[in-house]
Amino acid sequence: MIIAVDAAGGDHYPESPVLGAIEATKELSDLKVILVGPKAMINEELSNHEYDPQRILVQHATEVIGMNESPAQAVKTKQKSSIVTGVGIHKAGKCNAFVSAGNTGALLAASTFLLGKLEGVSRPTIAAVYPTVKGIRLMMDVGANLEMRSEMYKQFAQMGTIYANTVMGIEDPKVGLLNVGEEKGKGTEDLKEAFEELKDLPNFVGNIEGRDIFPAKADIFLCNGLVGNLLLKLGESIPDAVGTFIQKGIQKLDLSTDEAKLVAQILKASLEEFNPERVGGVPFLGVDGLTMVGHGSSTPLAIKNMILNAVKCIEHNINEKIVASLN
Amino acid sequence: MIIAVDAAGGDHYPESPVLGAIEATKELSDLKVILVGPKAMINEELSNHEYDPQRILVQHATEVIGMNESPAQAVKTKQKSSIVTGVGIHKAGKCNAFVSAGNTGALLAASTFLLGKLEGVSRPTIAAVYPTVKGIRLMMDVGANLEMRSEMYKQFAQMGTIYANTVMGIEDPKVGLLNVGEEKGKGTEDLKEAFEELKDLPNFVGNIEGRDIFPAKADIFLCNGLVGNLLLKLGESIPDAVGTFIQKGIQKLDLSTDEAKLVAQILKASLEEFNPERVGGVPFLGVDGLTMVGHGSSTPLAIKNMILNAVKCIEHNINEKIVASLN
Repeated sequence: MIIAVDAAGGDHYPESPVLGAIEATKELSDLKVILVGPKAMINEELSNHEYDPQRILVQHATEVIGMNESPAQAVKTKQKSSIVTGVGIHKAGKCNAFVSAGNTGALLAASTFLLGKLEGVSRPTIAAVYPTVKGIRLMMDVGANLEMRSEMYKQFAQMGTIYANTVMGIEDPKVGLLNVGEEKGKGTEDLKEAFEELKDLPNFVGNIEGRDIFPAKADIFLCNGLVGNLLLKLGESIPDAVGTFIQKGIQKLDLSTDEAKLVAQILKASLEEFNPERVGGVPFLGVDGLTMVGHGSSTPLAIKNMILNAVKCIEHNINEKIVASLN
Repeated sequence: MIIAVDAAGGDHYPESPVLGAIEATKELSDLKVILVGPKAMINEELSNHEYDPQRILVQHATEVIGMNESPAQAVKTKQKSSIVTGVGIHKAGKCNAFVSAGNTGALLAASTFLLGKLEGVSRPTIAAVYPTVKGIRLMMDVGANLEMRSEMYKQFAQMGTIYANTVMGIEDPKVGLLNVGEEKGKGTEDLKEAFEELKDLPNFVGNIEGRDIFPAKADIFLCNGLVGNLLLKLGESIPDAVGTFIQKGIQKLDLSTDEAKLVAQILKASLEEFNPERVGGVPFLGVDGLTMVGHGSSTPLAIKNMILNAVKCIEHNINEKIVASLN
């Protein structure tokens, strides 16, 4: 099992990817990691840590794609970037997957362009995990496809079902279509058509509303990428927002320092589901290969978990299962 | 000042609207309220309470539009419903506004059809208040216009600016366009065009992301009605969700009963911004008249606050200001 890791992606490179890679090899004894990026930078970071040089390899790549660069442009002009190089060595069969906390759009563009799509897939999608009171669930699409044709909803539902079941371990995952009301016939023309496409899927539970997400009325929240991206980022901001609201509440009630400390401790323990480090990263479903993207702010723990998640996807043969499900 | 109130709307009629109306007349001495709905039902509820019969009047309406009825159909077939009657007496000049916690779509349809639009307005919009760490802010559209042409964003921004400034008391409110990234050129073609329409408004601050809502990076969050409806209902579900998450955290940490009570008390005090009772209801901006809708679950306090909010809108002449701003 060989996973390539973008050593020049995210807000905290090279430290986060290098440390995350080392930690992953300590956890899985048959794992090798290829760190992709500027060799000198990677080796300098590696020299600060203890690691097994037989299992941490380096693939030189001179260029770095910035977080805010235009994806298509960056992939075209920076052929020697860590992202294009990483996807390239995956395409060449030198590793089982490539993971990155870098520019999502650039990784998606490179993946689609170099690896192509699985048989029967019309568009790859980004599915993200979403915190609910029942544990993490899946929201898709969250930004790869801002507008969606009706048949894409069905394909995404099928791909998401496989991922939720095999990798996330959700038994018989239910698919809900995010809409403005529960009744059939609600929403835009696109959503009405999507409903018609979805209704034959055995695990489709119909329209769900914004209030149904946290109680997990479904396990897969289907929506277009504009809706999903906004809901995802709003969700990510909740722990900080709740922290601020509670800070104000504490001031209002004039609590003691000990009481305030207790509340902070409870809050931290309670909102653990919101911590993006736990899953680390999510795959682009539908790509003929395995590339995975993590949050820009990924810590070493997040990168380690993204690598382990990639291993899980490969062990479960998700792509084979997706092709079988679609065709 | 005369406000008509739907006595047969929402989940808790006639009690909530009747009690809310009585409370409002106690708070404002020059206010009269007309309760609209089945006379016998209203009089029976009134007989349980003390009120000034000079200032609480009844307008008989035999039919009731249910919360889940198809709006256009209901307005067409139930001409004697409380909603159609209430909008009708407002149209006839018998009151300054009509407010309801009933079927939003039916009220919007009746308002648009009977009252018409303000000069220069292409479509009325529903703006909702959204909790942020800086206090409540405005999100629009939240369901009246699921898809929006680019020029509608600009009109809604202008109408929202007037409402946020004059009624909500936000000085120089800033308008942000909800999008998948901050940079110009992000998003769907519709959003790119909307950006171009908006960029000449002096209070437009550009694209904002989902994570910018709770910190209130803008005061008016502009989006289409599909996005707004989902974000609004997700937001409304946060107090319950956070309560459940914290309940689990408390169990994990094995707290004492006293400690758990303290946390519950803090949570309640902290998430007060999320309480929809505080504002009670929001107007359909762009309608030639004033109709206002509240949450289906409205309590008497929510109805009272919706009535007081309607009075505020009238005192501030928001419609005159909207017409002046648009033309």
